[in-house]
Amino acid sequence: VSVLREIEAITVDIFGTTVDWRTGVIDALNRLSAKKDLPFDAGALVDAWRERYLPAVAQINDGEREWANLDTIHGEALSECLDVFGYSAYFDAAERAEMVRAWYVLPPWRDSLDGLRKLRENHLVVALSNGSFALLARLIKTAGLPFDAIISAENVHAYKPDVRAYRHAARLLDLPPERILMVAAHTWDIDGARAAGLRTAFVERPDEKGPARAADRAEDTVSDLTATSFTELADALVRG
Amino acid sequence: VSVLREIEAITVDIFGTTVDWRTGVIDALNRLSAKKDLPFDAGALVDAWRERYLPAVAQINDGEREWANLDTIHGEALSECLDVFGYSAYFDAAERAEMVRAWYVLPPWRDSLDGLRKLRENHLVVALSNGSFALLARLIKTAGLPFDAIISAENVHAYKPDVRAYRHAARLLDLPPERILMVAAHTWDIDGARAAGLRTAFVERPDEKGPARAADRAEDTVSDLTATSFTELADALVRG
Repeated sequence: VSVLREIEAITVDIFGTTVDWRTGVIDALNRLSAKKDLPFDAGALVDAWRERYLPAVAQINDGEREWANLDTIHGEALSECLDVFGYSAYFDAAERAEMVRAWYVLPPWRDSLDGLRKLRENHLVVALSNGSFALLARLIKTAGLPFDAIISAENVHAYKPDVRAYRHAARLLDLPPERILMVAAHTWDIDGARAAGLRTAFVERPDEKGPARAADRAEDTVSDLTATSFTELADALVRG
Repeated sequence: VSVLREIEAITVDIFGTTVDWRTGVIDALNRLSAKKDLPFDAGALVDAWRERYLPAVAQINDGEREWANLDTIHGEALSECLDVFGYSAYFDAAERAEMVRAWYVLPPWRDSLDGLRKLRENHLVVALSNGSFALLARLIKTAGLPFDAIISAENVHAYKPDVRAYRHAARLLDLPPERILMVAAHTWDIDGARAAGLRTAFVERPDEKGPARAADRAEDTVSDLTATSFTELADALVRG
C-alpha cells in the first residue's frame, strides 16, 4: 500500500481505540455504588451513557447547540441515564462529578503501549480525541501511553467526525492531510477522517462494546489499512 | 516553601530553558555555510537573529500586528540579519527555509531529560512555548524530551509574556493558575507567568547566550523557587 510510505504523522483515537472505556467506567461505577443498597447494573448504565455521546456531539457540530466540552456532555447524559434507571436519588452532585471523572482513568488495551512505542519509532504519534485537553493529558499520563503530543477537538470547538476536527490537527501539525494516518476503531471516525483527506487505519476492537453488543467492523467502512492491534499496524507500516 | 505543595502541573519553557538553541542553531548555520567562500560568523548572526525575537513578539501582543507564527517571525528576522551582515546574496529562499528549520532540532541541556523525567513522577509536566505546535512536536520528539503534553502560544494567538498565553494553559489544564508552576530561564517569562497568577521557578542557564553575553539572572526577577537544573528543581519540589 504505497500511500502509506508518505505518512509522516499518525493521529490516534483514544476512547475505544487505545483504551477500554467500558471496563474502566464500569469498574469505577461499581466502586462508587458498592456501599449503596441498589440493584445497580453498571454495564447497562454505561452502555446507555455512551449511547448518548454521538447524538450530543452531532448537535454541537450541526450548530444546534453552543460548544460544550466532553465533561459537560458526559455530566448531562449521566443525569438522564440515572433518571431512566431510577437511580437519581442515590447519587449526589459530588458522586456524579466523580462518575464523570471515571473517564479520566481508563485501562489501555493490551497492545496499546508496545504498539504506540513501535509506531513512534518512525512517525510522530499524536492523540486526536474528543476528550478535553485536561482529560486527555491526565488519562494518557495515568495509562502511561507514549504519545508525542495531544490534540483535543476542544481547540477548534468542533468534534470528530466533523472534518474541522481533523483539518485542525493537520494545520497544527503543518502537514497536508494525506500525510497523516488516522487510526480508529469506529467507522464514523474513519469516515470523518477520510472526508477530511486523511489516510485511515481501522483497528478492530471486538470487545469495545462488551459481550452483548457488536463492535464496529472494518467491512462497514473504507480504510487504507486494517489491523487487529497497534503492534500489527506498526508492522504493516514498516512493510509499507 | 509550602505553596509548592499545591502544584499539580508544571509548565516548562523550551528555548533556552530546556534546549540550548544557540549551540544548535550555530551548528546548523555552520553546516549550511561551510561550502560558501564567506567570512561567516554564525555566532554573531544567531545573536542578532535572536535579539529580534522579543520585539517582534511584543508587536503582536500589543495588537500592532496580526498574528504570525514563530517560523514567520524567524524568517523575517533572518532576512534582516542577512542584510545587515552582508550575506543576503549568498542564501536563497530554500536555504533560508532550512535555516528557519534549524530551530526544530536543538540539543537539550545536560540535565533536561533526567530532570523532566523526575518532575513527571509527581506532576503533569507540559511544554509551554512560543514555538508553533508543529515545531514543538518535532523538536521535543527529536530531542527525546519526556513531556506529558505540549501547549503552544499559537493556540491562543498571544505570545508569552502576555498573560493570555499562561491563562490559556491554565484553562486547557483545567487548573487554577496558582496550582501551576512555570519554569523558565528568562526574567520576562517568569514576570509574565507571575502576572497571570502562576507559581514560578527560575532555572539558571548561564551559557544560554554564549560566552560574550550575560544570561538572565534569578536576582533580576521574583520567583517562588530558583534552581540550576531540572534535577535540582525536582529535588526541591519533593522536599516541598
